[in-house]
Amino acid sequence: MRAAVTAVESPCPRPGRLAVVGLGPGSRALMAPAARLELEQAQDIIGYNTYVEMAGPFRADQVIHGSDNRCEMDRARAAFALAAEGRHVVVVSSGDPGIFAMATAVLEALEVHAEPAWHAVELAVVPGISAAQAAAARIGAPLGHDFCIISLSDNLKPWSQIVHRLELAARADLVIACYNPISRARPWQLGEALAVLRGVRDADTPVVLGRDVGRPAERVRVTTLGALDPQAVDMRTVVIVGSSQTRHFSAPEGRDWVYTPRWYPQPAEQD
Amino acid sequence: MRAAVTAVESPCPRPGRLAVVGLGPGSRALMAPAARLELEQAQDIIGYNTYVEMAGPFRADQVIHGSDNRCEMDRARAAFALAAEGRHVVVVSSGDPGIFAMATAVLEALEVHAEPAWHAVELAVVPGISAAQAAAARIGAPLGHDFCIISLSDNLKPWSQIVHRLELAARADLVIACYNPISRARPWQLGEALAVLRGVRDADTPVVLGRDVGRPAERVRVTTLGALDPQAVDMRTVVIVGSSQTRHFSAPEGRDWVYTPRWYPQPAEQD
Repeated sequence: MRAAVTAVESPCPRPGRLAVVGLGPGSRALMAPAARLELEQAQDIIGYNTYVEMAGPFRADQVIHGSDNRCEMDRARAAFALAAEGRHVVVVSSGDPGIFAMATAVLEALEVHAEPAWHAVELAVVPGISAAQAAAARIGAPLGHDFCIISLSDNLKPWSQIVHRLELAARADLVIACYNPISRARPWQLGEALAVLRGVRDADTPVVLGRDVGRPAERVRVTTLGALDPQAVDMRTVVIVGSSQTRHFSAPEGRDWVYTPRWYPQPAEQD
Repeated sequence: MRAAVTAVESPCPRPGRLAVVGLGPGSRALMAPAARLELEQAQDIIGYNTYVEMAGPFRADQVIHGSDNRCEMDRARAAFALAAEGRHVVVVSSGDPGIFAMATAVLEALEVHAEPAWHAVELAVVPGISAAQAAAARIGAPLGHDFCIISLSDNLKPWSQIVHRLELAARADLVIACYNPISRARPWQLGEALAVLRGVRDADTPVVLGRDVGRPAERVRVTTLGALDPQAVDMRTVVIVGSSQTRHFSAPEGRDWVYTPRWYPQPAEQD
């Protein structure tokens, strides 16, 4: 009797849990079991509608809080508010929540906007397979040597910084995976980015275009830096630009493979 | 009767399958179901002994081909030779096989060393969660903005190229995840790499050290670029060096969090 009263009327509810969970590229086969477990145990699921649908179906007792894709900080705050009340909350991201996704918004909310109760929430980030990894796996191993991932979106950073990064990354001969390459609101940025890369890398550098990898409409193509037309790319595509060492070959029956070797040539000896 | 003879005596055996599979950082909870399925269906499992043990246990009918960690090309060739005989072969890697792991050796074997029968093998790469992602998730979201992954091993690339890349990556203000930071055979390289980074980044830049993340002995620490002692790092550690924007804060009860914000400051206006 006493125990039941304590459980119901406790003035200090047990703090809840907030898990930021990566769904991977889309297919269930590439989602970590840890992510699946968090989704099963969640009382509240928060996320961009498309990702919430990808994560489902959910049970009738689970509460879904869908939203559009532009209010990350609002979603992060809502998640903490629910978890601080003792709820088990999952925030869903596609790919890896730690790579251009919700984990950083959740951490920013905790540092900058936190109410005291938020710090008592059990916070966890469950990593996932990011889009560049899924695209790379489908075409071979273009990320097999030093590489970088750079978002081409200038919504939250100055375009000049993006150009500066691309120029230095190209000179460093890193393989460059470009996220958020183009959108209706950002139609010219990819063309300008390619111009920067073409100023440093050869025109015949292999470029991999991975669209919706791991989903039913998956399409992976190989082109070259010189031939790539920005109009062949949309916001659901990841663009992987090879280094000077990245190789493209076809098997006799026609399948294309792209990889970046593990080794890097020694500098030319001076005679 | 006829069918049985055909199956046994067929002069053209059905080509086999070769799957290069990522085990993720170590815990089963972070291994993709697609990787688990490949391991269950494999007839032959090839890999570095430590990773084969991580992937097991296996059934009595499965053949294990363990090896030491230095003969990647031999392993890749052995895998193709078995698959070309019609076997279902799995090559295991820790993390993501496409990131400093076996996928690129397998592709190189196919391009450079292939026998004709190898091209008929059904080849697949199953991606996984890489060490930097697992370490990042444990400490927050240090890879939440543009970043690169650079191996500090000069076994297969010239040290001058590594220094060049680190210098440019630091100037690009990318977060830098360093793989293979140090080993008994490479004792001084991390110290020199840190000197390069300290020449560009502030001494108070957050640095995350993730050791054996996802395994029982997991340890994640936060330090600064100025304070990091190479002797605190070993070959099982991934070193994530923040950008100028990376934030480190502690919750009141003491847990450390590190993240890199989604936004980047506008350049200062000229007055």
